Amino acid sequence: MGHTVFSALDVQTQSGVCTITLNRPEVRNAMSLTMVQELLGALRHAESTADVRVLVLRGAGGHFCAGGDIADMAQARMKLAAQGADGGDPVADFNAQFGRLCLAYARTRLPVVTVLEGTVMGGGFGLACVSDVSLALNTTVFRLPETSLGVIPAQIAPFLVERLGYAQAKRLAVTGAKVTADQAAAIALVHQVLPDAAALEVALQGTLQQILACAPGAIGMTKDLLARARHETAESLIDDAARLFSRAVLSEEGQEGTHAFMQKRPPSWVPQES
Amino acid sequence: MGHTVFSALDVQTQSGVCTITLNRPEVRNAMSLTMVQELLGALRHAESTADVRVLVLRGAGGHFCAGGDIADMAQARMKLAAQGADGGDPVADFNAQFGRLCLAYARTRLPVVTVLEGTVMGGGFGLACVSDVSLALNTTVFRLPETSLGVIPAQIAPFLVERLGYAQAKRLAVTGAKVTADQAAAIALVHQVLPDAAALEVALQGTLQQILACAPGAIGMTKDLLARARHETAESLIDDAARLFSRAVLSEEGQEGTHAFMQKRPPSWVPQES
Amino acid sequence: MGHTVFSALDVQTQSGVCTITLNRPEVRNAMSLTMVQELLGALRHAESTADVRVLVLRGAGGHFCAGGDIADMAQARMKLAAQGADGGDPVADFNAQFGRLCLAYARTRLPVVTVLEGTVMGGGFGLACVSDVSLALNTTVFRLPETSLGVIPAQIAPFLVERLGYAQAKRLAVTGAKVTADQAAAIALVHQVLPDAAALEVALQGTLQQILACAPGAIGMTKDLLARARHETAESLIDDAARLFSRAVLSEEGQEGTHAFMQKRPPSWVPQES
Repeated sequence: MGHTVFSALDVQTQSGVCTITLNRPEVRNAMSLTMVQELLGALRHAESTADVRVLVLRGAGGHFCAGGDIADMAQARMKLAAQGADGGDPVADFNAQFGRLCLAYARTRLPVVTVLEGTVMGGGFGLACVSDVSLALNTTVFRLPETSLGVIPAQIAPFLVERLGYAQAKRLAVTGAKVTADQAAAIALVHQVLPDAAALEVALQGTLQQILACAPGAIGMTKDLLARARHETAESLIDDAARLFSRAVLSEEGQEGTHAFMQKRPPSWVPQES
Repeated sequence: MGHTVFSALDVQTQSGVCTITLNRPEVRNAMSLTMVQELLGALRHAESTADVRVLVLRGAGGHFCAGGDIADMAQARMKLAAQGADGGDPVADFNAQFGRLCLAYARTRLPVVTVLEGTVMGGGFGLACVSDVSLALNTTVFRLPETSLGVIPAQIAPFLVERLGYAQAKRLAVTGAKVTADQAAAIALVHQVLPDAAALEVALQGTLQQILACAPGAIGMTKDLLARARHETAESLIDDAARLFSRAVLSEEGQEGTHAFMQKRPPSWVPQES
Repeated sequence: MGHTVFSALDVQTQSGVCTITLNRPEVRNAMSLTMVQELLGALRHAESTADVRVLVLRGAGGHFCAGGDIADMAQARMKLAAQGADGGDPVADFNAQFGRLCLAYARTRLPVVTVLEGTVMGGGFGLACVSDVSLALNTTVFRLPETSLGVIPAQIAPFLVERLGYAQAKRLAVTGAKVTADQAAAIALVHQVLPDAAALEVALQGTLQQILACAPGAIGMTKDLLARARHETAESLIDDAARLFSRAVLSEEGQEGTHAFMQKRPPSWVPQES
């Protein structure tokens, strides 16, 4: 069990589950530059901590995330206007940092679960898209407000396509995408819609149990392979997949999994019920 | 407001909405070579007309489109048989022109809405696939009759995959794809199914309002970026996306969007209710 | 009509339909090395037999397929442990053979229908993913147990992505994927869920009739084109698609299709009702 102090996040690890809570409830957890940097730091720390097996991403105060912070954005914009072309582009820099954050969460070998309450907008919508499993309250509201503000969903564009498919992503971007929880479930932006906070916590625990029943190394290898299968042909993956399979079979996990199966007992990585 | 006369189309522009109506009701708006050329011309004209902000594609006489025109196809085929290999291939030429038409509508920066009534077959099915938003009557019937006629859905194949995903496209092509409006909604070929003509017009107006509330330049940039994200990796897009975001923020639209947001008024691109 | 004897399969051909039945009911049709080799042999034989127009893949004894055979796998693993690095890698070899099998069924020009009953696990889940149309009983249970056994769904990874999309594939792999028939239908792993064996056979006959009403050569060309459209851009396919369309129009099928249409009779490839 651990508790690391951040300024825009609350991060707690318990029984292999690292819960990262966006913690700026006074602005519905809008993403400041600090929050972006801390989210990346918290991920890298979790990835390098041996006993962390799954990430939960959620928001404090009844909202998930209202998107980019207007104040930080305005500051970057003023800097840009003040310094002219020579001084670099702080708006693009901030935006690219957010892009690297999305990519890091999209490609981490750790399973990522998002708990979606209240407002899920802009960059928050993007974080929902990169997670492996998403649970939402039935009152949650999803939006891509960028085009209605004269800007664009830039860094999350690839992850809208990954999560929703190109056609649904296009439809949502063109119409401003005000989506209810049930509509979000229909397009698999959300995997389970729950009626109240208690049911949401029960569903979260159930999802975590399913994930913790799977071997962590095997999950990581599978996530890597599925990511490659997005852009590489099936034919070109056969030999690499075979090598990875063989390696998995001979690994400690693979041997423990077989023994446990033959001995009709849970393998060592399954948490014991207390 | 404008009204351009075509022989196989009716094109009207009002309040930023360019409505292109396939207008050969005597053959359920089957696509002749003339219609293909006019559809491309109408699109290029709309794209270069500053006040056109959205395209609506629909059919006259209660049908959307019955696919390629058999008569024009037979003529091209007879020409091909008569002239032999030396004289080029008019069947392939006609077909490639239709392919370029589909691509032009699929990749235009303008939002495209299809209104689907009656018959939606072959090439008409393809046009439904390339649009951003599709509304249909509950009596609309969708079909890919090509393979049952001994030919193939050639030019629309990529757009079946874009809209429905590879697996659903394969299933429909193999089975001849007789799909009801509700089934079409289940595979996101259609985004809203309406019970009658009045409800269809209300839904269309609602969709147009959503689209017109978004900034036109921002929509165009977003459509371009989403198209790139189909085949390029997320990683390779980060820097370009950041530059585009910065450019959008500094654009007239981006500045007007921010000012309007701070002043709690609708931005200038939102049509005033009359 | 033909009946070829295999040791792990039963293969029957009647009226253009080749039914391949996984036939190791004592182990819920678990896939042995022999079965993998025979499945590939049966496909190649069907592809080269002129009157075979569609493949049906199903399992004997109330189950579809429980995945890789543990005994064969254990043997390969012991061989690997015994011979060391010099003697090659029998685990990877077995796995790669299964990968080539999946690819062969995924890319065959013949339509493939799976009939899914009882257990559909691991490699069996993969076979369901590569088929064009899948029918299931409402009691069928789907699972990807690999990661819970410490190994990975290696060869089926590309086909999970093809069938379910990247995001759903990721979710299922991370959670161990215990999926009911109705849940499988919601993610288009299954196209029709039937309440009992009699309804399942009726649905199968209906699907076969739809497929047999389409021209076999045209289906093959369409499947090839759709597979290319997964990774190639729409723009790059226009000219090839036009050439293929022209070839289809001038083919025997294309001519028979047009004549039959004009003469208001079914084309020659449609089976006559007896």
